[in-house]
Amino acid sequence: MDEFGIIARHFAPLATTPGAFGLKDDAAAIAARPGFDLIVTTDQIAEGTDFFAQDPPASIAQKALRVNLSDLAAKGAVADCYLLVLALPPGATEEWLAQFAAGLGADQQRYGISLLGGDTSATTGPLTVTVTAFGFVPQGRMVTRGGAKPGDAIYVTGSIGDSAGGLAILKREPHALNQAQRDHLVARYHTPEPPIDFGKRLAGLATASVDISDGLIADIGHLAAASGVAVAVDAEAVPLSDALRALWGTDAILRAATSGDDYQIAFSASPARDGDIRAAAAQAGIAVTRIGAVAAGEGVTLHHQGRLLPVARPGYRHF
Amino acid sequence: MDEFGIIARHFAPLATTPGAFGLKDDAAAIAARPGFDLIVTTDQIAEGTDFFAQDPPASIAQKALRVNLSDLAAKGAVADCYLLVLALPPGATEEWLAQFAAGLGADQQRYGISLLGGDTSATTGPLTVTVTAFGFVPQGRMVTRGGAKPGDAIYVTGSIGDSAGGLAILKREPHALNQAQRDHLVARYHTPEPPIDFGKRLAGLATASVDISDGLIADIGHLAAASGVAVAVDAEAVPLSDALRALWGTDAILRAATSGDDYQIAFSASPARDGDIRAAAAQAGIAVTRIGAVAAGEGVTLHHQGRLLPVARPGYRHF
Repeated sequence: MDEFGIIARHFAPLATTPGAFGLKDDAAAIAARPGFDLIVTTDQIAEGTDFFAQDPPASIAQKALRVNLSDLAAKGAVADCYLLVLALPPGATEEWLAQFAAGLGADQQRYGISLLGGDTSATTGPLTVTVTAFGFVPQGRMVTRGGAKPGDAIYVTGSIGDSAGGLAILKREPHALNQAQRDHLVARYHTPEPPIDFGKRLAGLATASVDISDGLIADIGHLAAASGVAVAVDAEAVPLSDALRALWGTDAILRAATSGDDYQIAFSASPARDGDIRAAAAQAGIAVTRIGAVAAGEGVTLHHQGRLLPVARPGYRHF
Repeated sequence: MDEFGIIARHFAPLATTPGAFGLKDDAAAIAARPGFDLIVTTDQIAEGTDFFAQDPPASIAQKALRVNLSDLAAKGAVADCYLLVLALPPGATEEWLAQFAAGLGADQQRYGISLLGGDTSATTGPLTVTVTAFGFVPQGRMVTRGGAKPGDAIYVTGSIGDSAGGLAILKREPHALNQAQRDHLVARYHTPEPPIDFGKRLAGLATASVDISDGLIADIGHLAAASGVAVAVDAEAVPLSDALRALWGTDAILRAATSGDDYQIAFSASPARDGDIRAAAAQAGIAVTRIGAVAAGEGVTLHHQGRLLPVARPGYRHF
């Protein structure tokens, strides 16, 4: 294998946008889109931390891409293109690379995006995949973490904790799930399903928004801190899949709300927009659930049947 | 150490541009600059491949940044901001991070740029630093690799091979250099000095341009291939520092032209622009040397005193 051969065979066919110059230049170009801001995000995933070495190459590629598309969606941006930086350990084969690139190609079709550029090198360490994703929002309309106001409601898309449940199963935590339940949770660990189509409807609806990667409580905590408000979350309202309830029983809410890797969106909005939010969710074909309320103050609290649930560790930490 | 503490203490002070949101959001924003294209490049450097674990943290930071600024300069772009992705091995300390951030801060001042965002995580492998850099060029004016024409001259900035010489010294290749010569070469290995100020003068002067990272011959080969032309390089004309000549003697030209890590710019231009090129180099305070000529055909040849020099391996390869 050589670097230029890998790029030509596997990645150049994915670089369909003219600004990528067929991956044959030092840099790529993004033409100015007057009236729009370019939204930029970057996340690295690593073997042993975010995926397993034996995971399907296509799902590793899609996870690397989607954790970034999730950030763009949470900001109300429409994804446009991405950069890919790959550090390949000695075991990487042409077949592995072909499947990895096929995973990217399928997601490019699904989300209407193009590879823009990147860097490929060899590593003596674990495989890492770093994606930088680009999207557009109308000028000044990025949905930040900082706009939640007392009186707003807190919503979350999809269901929470499925990825963490999938990881628990892969780590051989005992369970009595049927095959369909097991497959659902493991699939969410391998390939997140961020609410991309809903994200582009957030600008103008949400007052603040965050992508749930560290954990529901931790990430709502970031939103509360950036907005200078307090948030109370009703534990009973946190949306959980039947599979996750079957896996974790009465522990499900607390584990789900603190484990991360969800790639759903938590956001605040005026309760007066509740109907618009439900309409947008229906158009995007996803579930949106009202789970809490914003008040003056600071911090996040989790309530269960009128009592405060103590949260020892609100989310995942790298260190 | 924790991820959020590291970001708040060491990196948030570097995020001076409003679009970085103080590193407290899921994504960053780059406002459209009507009439300009955004130029984007990304490169990862890794411990053991691009630097040594015991290298000064500030120089590791500056190398990671400058290898990217070099790409922007070669495209005629003016650097604006960058993303930083850090995978930290277990040994990383607060003191190491403080010095690393200080290196970035010094370069931000020097080049007039801001940190825009990033991602920090822990790794079980070697330290890697991934930078994505952004710059602007007037719309449609990016200097590509593809515009060289028969009859053009080939130029190169600065001197070639100093970084490779520095690496040879660090790898304990025997030498009889004095301290100043040794320090000059090792400094170029630790911290490249890409011709940033000259780069922004390239648009309108150069017909094609490439940043020399893989090796002078290899990278001019990329320019020749993208332009569909042949290039003949006069080995005698390749600019070498006195220190490198002292280190490698008669081997210096061939080793310098094939070893890479230079972060100088090779470019083609009409010989009619020779005076303008020399004036631009003088304004930027750097040396520019005419080293070859473009003809119809394909490939790169290296000539020495009228004879063809065989080049077994034109540049560095990762695999």
